[in-house]
Amino acid sequence: MAAMTPLLSALAGDAEIETLLCDEAQIATVLAVERALAEACADTGWITAADAEAVGKAIEGFVPDKEELAAGMARDGVVVPALVKQLRTTIPEPHRMALHKGATSQDILDTALMLQLARVMDVLEARLTALLSRLDALAEAEGGRKLMAHTRMQQALETTWGAKIASWSEPLQRQLRALEAMRRSLLVVQLGGPVGDRGSFDGHGDAIAAGLARRLDLGLAAPWHATRDPIIAFGNRLALVSGVTGKIGADVTLLAQNEVGAVRLEGGGGSSAMAHKSNPVRAEVLVALARFNAGLAGTLNQAMVHEYERSGAAWTLEWLTLPQMAVTAGASLRLSLELVEQMRLG
Amino acid sequence: MAAMTPLLSALAGDAEIETLLCDEAQIATVLAVERALAEACADTGWITAADAEAVGKAIEGFVPDKEELAAGMARDGVVVPALVKQLRTTIPEPHRMALHKGATSQDILDTALMLQLARVMDVLEARLTALLSRLDALAEAEGGRKLMAHTRMQQALETTWGAKIASWSEPLQRQLRALEAMRRSLLVVQLGGPVGDRGSFDGHGDAIAAGLARRLDLGLAAPWHATRDPIIAFGNRLALVSGVTGKIGADVTLLAQNEVGAVRLEGGGGSSAMAHKSNPVRAEVLVALARFNAGLAGTLNQAMVHEYERSGAAWTLEWLTLPQMAVTAGASLRLSLELVEQMRLG
Amino acid sequence: MAAMTPLLSALAGDAEIETLLCDEAQIATVLAVERALAEACADTGWITAADAEAVGKAIEGFVPDKEELAAGMARDGVVVPALVKQLRTTIPEPHRMALHKGATSQDILDTALMLQLARVMDVLEARLTALLSRLDALAEAEGGRKLMAHTRMQQALETTWGAKIASWSEPLQRQLRALEAMRRSLLVVQLGGPVGDRGSFDGHGDAIAAGLARRLDLGLAAPWHATRDPIIAFGNRLALVSGVTGKIGADVTLLAQNEVGAVRLEGGGGSSAMAHKSNPVRAEVLVALARFNAGLAGTLNQAMVHEYERSGAAWTLEWLTLPQMAVTAGASLRLSLELVEQMRLG
Amino acid sequence: MAAMTPLLSALAGDAEIETLLCDEAQIATVLAVERALAEACADTGWITAADAEAVGKAIEGFVPDKEELAAGMARDGVVVPALVKQLRTTIPEPHRMALHKGATSQDILDTALMLQLARVMDVLEARLTALLSRLDALAEAEGGRKLMAHTRMQQALETTWGAKIASWSEPLQRQLRALEAMRRSLLVVQLGGPVGDRGSFDGHGDAIAAGLARRLDLGLAAPWHATRDPIIAFGNRLALVSGVTGKIGADVTLLAQNEVGAVRLEGGGGSSAMAHKSNPVRAEVLVALARFNAGLAGTLNQAMVHEYERSGAAWTLEWLTLPQMAVTAGASLRLSLELVEQMRLG
Repeated sequence: MAAMTPLLSALAGDAEIETLLCDEAQIATVLAVERALAEACADTGWITAADAEAVGKAIEGFVPDKEELAAGMARDGVVVPALVKQLRTTIPEPHRMALHKGATSQDILDTALMLQLARVMDVLEARLTALLSRLDALAEAEGGRKLMAHTRMQQALETTWGAKIASWSEPLQRQLRALEAMRRSLLVVQLGGPVGDRGSFDGHGDAIAAGLARRLDLGLAAPWHATRDPIIAFGNRLALVSGVTGKIGADVTLLAQNEVGAVRLEGGGGSSAMAHKSNPVRAEVLVALARFNAGLAGTLNQAMVHEYERSGAAWTLEWLTLPQMAVTAGASLRLSLELVEQMRLG
Repeated sequence: MAAMTPLLSALAGDAEIETLLCDEAQIATVLAVERALAEACADTGWITAADAEAVGKAIEGFVPDKEELAAGMARDGVVVPALVKQLRTTIPEPHRMALHKGATSQDILDTALMLQLARVMDVLEARLTALLSRLDALAEAEGGRKLMAHTRMQQALETTWGAKIASWSEPLQRQLRALEAMRRSLLVVQLGGPVGDRGSFDGHGDAIAAGLARRLDLGLAAPWHATRDPIIAFGNRLALVSGVTGKIGADVTLLAQNEVGAVRLEGGGGSSAMAHKSNPVRAEVLVALARFNAGLAGTLNQAMVHEYERSGAAWTLEWLTLPQMAVTAGASLRLSLELVEQMRLG
Repeated sequence: MAAMTPLLSALAGDAEIETLLCDEAQIATVLAVERALAEACADTGWITAADAEAVGKAIEGFVPDKEELAAGMARDGVVVPALVKQLRTTIPEPHRMALHKGATSQDILDTALMLQLARVMDVLEARLTALLSRLDALAEAEGGRKLMAHTRMQQALETTWGAKIASWSEPLQRQLRALEAMRRSLLVVQLGGPVGDRGSFDGHGDAIAAGLARRLDLGLAAPWHATRDPIIAFGNRLALVSGVTGKIGADVTLLAQNEVGAVRLEGGGGSSAMAHKSNPVRAEVLVALARFNAGLAGTLNQAMVHEYERSGAAWTLEWLTLPQMAVTAGASLRLSLELVEQMRLG
Repeated sequence: MAAMTPLLSALAGDAEIETLLCDEAQIATVLAVERALAEACADTGWITAADAEAVGKAIEGFVPDKEELAAGMARDGVVVPALVKQLRTTIPEPHRMALHKGATSQDILDTALMLQLARVMDVLEARLTALLSRLDALAEAEGGRKLMAHTRMQQALETTWGAKIASWSEPLQRQLRALEAMRRSLLVVQLGGPVGDRGSFDGHGDAIAAGLARRLDLGLAAPWHATRDPIIAFGNRLALVSGVTGKIGADVTLLAQNEVGAVRLEGGGGSSAMAHKSNPVRAEVLVALARFNAGLAGTLNQAMVHEYERSGAAWTLEWLTLPQMAVTAGASLRLSLELVEQMRLG
């Protein structure tokens, strides 16, 4: 997932999360899901062990034709039909139809998304932990230092850096806890078949779903093709992460003003015209990312309105927004860490 | 809180929640907080019991000069300074300064907001429960009935009304549980003093906060003047409530199409020009409310970026959005209940 | 249209524009449109002059039953059917059906909206002109005064107040010109009949539309029930007005910082806890309004997606957003004028 | 500009506009602006003709070190300082400082953006023209065919395909005219120097700006570093383009329902599970793109609130949104053309 050009990404993106959400990562994850599905089907006896083995072997050696995948995406609105078609040609009969048996494209893509989001959450949680630890160290070292407080953009009374840092850390802790708490409800298997009622699995649907979940280390859930509230809630949480760090960014841009001088930034950004300047670039970008992710949250919430059993319109809208939100939240934490490293209290 | 004119509110608003958030309700709640604050101060010995009693007596008999409150709001950006000033003139000396002692306007308003939101949550939870119960009854009565499923706006395969209703109920249950779970973290006392560090309470701050929380049946928390993530998370939840019901609305507008005929609505809306029509008005409004609240969530998230220890800009933005979101979520549930009553499965 | 409670409106609303968009103003305008429609029908001979006179006389004396209108709004999703029904009972036969002949509710409401927006534009243009004139005077008086410029929140080089004021005035001038230029394309009559093709007017549709336009001083246009781009473009313009003044507000909050001291505000907002403060309340609210109207623009644009010949969902969404945007733009200009009056350059 | 991964772009992106806005295109355009600036400076005698020639020669042969550019972007928040530094090392003395003389990074980037947007507008206008022409042909061939009209998602009365197609074409014509009309006001040179008052050009600023504009075929304007309303207005127009085509998409998804059968799509999207389906993929994506661009418009409008003479936060937010909006508008028109080709009226 490149939410932006490489240059803009160097400033405001996140290489690590972009990699977790790129096409290659998605296709690899989709293949892992198809393989686990075949194995779960075999567990129930709905296909044979030889079927599952043939599917697994085909997936191991599979090299997709990317151009044809792109053509399929444009035609079908979803990459899975073309992918399954390509993959099936590499499976010897009589095992061919054991691939993707009973499933619909959305089962595979949504389950793959859960696996990808689990990795995204790993990154976000690790960064939140690192950021909190850095802020703790700063509070320990400098918490007693005096700082003029400002309310409504006017000087108020003196407070301490300890109070300021606490006001940054506390909401970060809440985001960390919320992300951790969300894993169980969010990271669940999707298995519904064409119309989301598991009617296509000849009575094996619940067992296959359970097997799929166990093999992929995901939670179990009823099919949720058109009920996306946990995903949207995750997106909202990503916006909150960016919002919390945007507030840190706003504070730093203000505290680092020449006239205020409460913070100095080592290695501030340079200007092409004014050599004396040291710009609070990362702090500014944190503000931009907070506003960007806030806006994307508003758009993502529009994707709640699914028509009928599956909405191509709402689902596509989710694809257009959610990955960007993950990258933006990642960038918010990356830049916050870098910013705190730059800060010298003055 | 009238988010709209009375006529528009009759269609898309919520009289009950508007009443909980109107000026009169806010001022009454603010006065209750000031009274509890004086009592909590007296508990710690920071003011005398006679002080607290004088404050309580003044509040009991207080009739605010609304015009002067409005003028104060326009001047100060917040109603509390004018309210405190008016109220103090009714308190006999030497008790006058015992009112609002150590507190800042935001302490009072945010704590009052928590009390108001607790009532809003009562309403939303009661309606969610009623709606779920109605859907359960419908599923029991008609769950086995066949229904053509549609994906990507095309006929797919037959499913059952039971599966359809389950796809409506399940996310509603999640919203109900999420609202209930949110009470503890959201509904907390705000007490920080001018710059949010309790420095204005001569060392009694923590004890007074605890007393205030106990008297108002709120949770305890460190001051959170500029860290609004729990409030924004509540707003995001309100948007999800409207999103879930917007999906129900979208389904009903589609199922009730003349050409589809899977639902008939008793008492559908009339037309000024076409007597034969029975319009799915409530279902359409549910879609509109989902989109409205989604957009407001995007705006509310912008209010995360508080400057320094208190941002007038971000706080005002919260006032402009959050109450509307509560009204909209309330209207979404009200209309969903009415819509389910109207539905006749065909 | 009260986009907010009276107290919040005193801070961030606009009494004048709220009055132009309130229920009473809408109903009066709707009645004026029904009257002009009857007259235009009579002009073409489609109804008699006596018919039109009877309609006009009934409208003159008409006092609506507001409760029944609200009930009709809730039932039909639009107020016109109930209003027409009430009004018809006051018209003697054989003239009764001459009222609203051939028209659909949306014809009446949209045409009335155009008349209301024309008044809103009068207010906005007058305020833009007044604000520009005040800024011109300020530039003349103080334009040569030195001012430290800041880029990326750091001191850059000296510039002048003349340059600063020019950067405020120029985009205001553009908004004024854009509003004026928009009148011709925006303020047009709506007349389409039930399905928007003038098929209900027995061949008199074009002539009646022309007569209606002439009598109401509106432009002529093909029916536009489901093509709302000019209305959305007007909403976008309202957001730009608030955006331009939000930038002024942001500058003033920064220039008025104690540490910067480039602006002093006469009569700044007071604090309940810190007597020494003079808060830049209006400047902060300008920032809040810019962000609020920006967000509403994003939501209003969602209302472009009308289903078929008329979408109740999209139209309701327009009602929920556009009036608030007009009030917000009005408040932005009102507060800008007040803010510039408060400013003392330092 | 890749607003998305290659696979998602195949569905919902626009290769042609992505290419116009990619890093390589931006850098090439930036270099063209630097060259034109040197020539315009030489025209006024502020640098010598030999200076300008040396700059031009260096630019011709310049191959940027992309990694170092990315590092500069991350450090400075803008790519120009690193680019100018690299380029200067390739210019022989005494000509080195003639490059970028008097200018600030924003002068170069904004002027380059104007050149890029001019190309984007070429593409959009050409596609609008092609789409209108295709719709005209369809109206001519099938305009008299009967079609059931629907209002509020219910059958209303018969209308014609001619009326339907006109309701699609008319707003497209308005967008085409609006884009054409916008060229003059939007596509202007940016030249202000470090603080936007042309103070860095030793009195030659106006002449250099005029020369720059003439050489690049752009309009003339006062510096507009922090007054972005024309750019935001362009973004709003892009959202309207997507909104207009989103309405077409919504109509087609509805008309192509199996139960309605008014449209059949040749080559509709396939399903991995249901061979009988022909999904209206492009129509659905048009709806998604309308909602996506609407949301981005709301976010872009947040970028109006520039602090002081240049806001890194607001400018970065513009970069995060505007290019995506252009790609999305382009994709909206691309898919509309493809969709109309697919349509068979039934």
